[in-house]
Amino acid sequence: MIKILAFDLFGTLVDTSSISKVFPERNISKINSKSFMETWQSKQLQYAWFLNSINKFEPFSDLSIRALKFTLKIHSIELNSDQIDRFREAQLQLDPFPDSKKGLEVLLKSKNNADYNNSRKLVILSNGESVKTDKLLSNISLRRYFDHIFSAEEVRKYKPAKELYILASERLNISVSEIALVSSNLWDIAGAQSAGMQTCWINRKDKKTNEELDIKADYVLSSIEDLKQIL
Amino acid sequence: MIKILAFDLFGTLVDTSSISKVFPERNISKINSKSFMETWQSKQLQYAWFLNSINKFEPFSDLSIRALKFTLKIHSIELNSDQIDRFREAQLQLDPFPDSKKGLEVLLKSKNNADYNNSRKLVILSNGESVKTDKLLSNISLRRYFDHIFSAEEVRKYKPAKELYILASERLNISVSEIALVSSNLWDIAGAQSAGMQTCWINRKDKKTNEELDIKADYVLSSIEDLKQIL
Repeated sequence: MIKILAFDLFGTLVDTSSISKVFPERNISKINSKSFMETWQSKQLQYAWFLNSINKFEPFSDLSIRALKFTLKIHSIELNSDQIDRFREAQLQLDPFPDSKKGLEVLLKSKNNADYNNSRKLVILSNGESVKTDKLLSNISLRRYFDHIFSAEEVRKYKPAKELYILASERLNISVSEIALVSSNLWDIAGAQSAGMQTCWINRKDKKTNEELDIKADYVLSSIEDLKQIL
Repeated sequence: MIKILAFDLFGTLVDTSSISKVFPERNISKINSKSFMETWQSKQLQYAWFLNSINKFEPFSDLSIRALKFTLKIHSIELNSDQIDRFREAQLQLDPFPDSKKGLEVLLKSKNNADYNNSRKLVILSNGESVKTDKLLSNISLRRYFDHIFSAEEVRKYKPAKELYILASERLNISVSEIALVSSNLWDIAGAQSAGMQTCWINRKDKKTNEELDIKADYVLSSIEDLKQIL
């Protein structure tokens, strides 16, 4: 039985590649923006897990900017600090996937239904800072679907370290096995499984970018809208 | 005082990009081999630190092949299992940097000198498996310079986790502060510093690929040959 649906944010509810909206004015459209995004996103995770490895922590938005600076260097692009700040702002304006709002709407309705188990909650479990996550979700009108935002900064460890998954269980006073993580990121599924959660892997498309990790999620769905099927 | 010089292997003593020797027969020369290597190497670290984050371990050569498969997928290259095995073999035939042997030769001579403190040792501290590290070093005639090989598999944690740096100190019965890590990888320098080691960053060239990490090594040298200056 799933009592809590815990959603990953980046790449699961919002499309991180939509930050390329700021590329035309940044001379990045001249180069391969797909390859640029791949390097940047991969480096973000690498730095997050580097910090996990040496037991240090810094806010995800700072780490993300360092990963951006590395990526710019690799792609021989020079930006001044004002231009880099525009990237920071753009991270608060990422587009939701088309199925995110529709799916969340259905889940909210079923939750508000009178004969529904009131203990069910929708929460966010993100490596991003809670203030920024709150702002991003508000900007794109998704904030109202969620009861809580749990952020890596509270435990000073990045997913897939077990601390953040466990935190949700402790704060909500629900067994970790009654929480299902919803994520498009296989490494996140792996972390949630290690921590004892149920797992729903949202696999929208692009099998090319799926990690080469030997992981089996409890549920594999192709959209947030399909989540209603498993409840 | 530096009593032990602990060398990183990949990218510090051997040139990992020399694996591109196998590229012509693999159709990889058609694509950008630099970008291919960047994705592969970055993914190797990412997977290593992913495993650190969830407290799991697998041998580096297996992890490296998974990172290779991901990289092939991203670059739309199909290889059969025989061709992938050729990559495994090629990893045991990487070229040393031109200054590696010259520098190690000088250090060995100074070590064998009669008026020299006999406690000084040269060791390897690598994320690679010890058997494979031994073989690679033998294949390129570098094995004889080293008294010990310390490998991530012994502690089941990858650098920059502190366990491997500490292991060297415990096994050699030398204070961790009397060991200097020699590495071209800034993340490795960061780990060694966190564990309490002295650090020598070998920064040969290509500042473009230097990590965006705010780290100051105790010594910054441009080749292995320059190590004699700090002893």
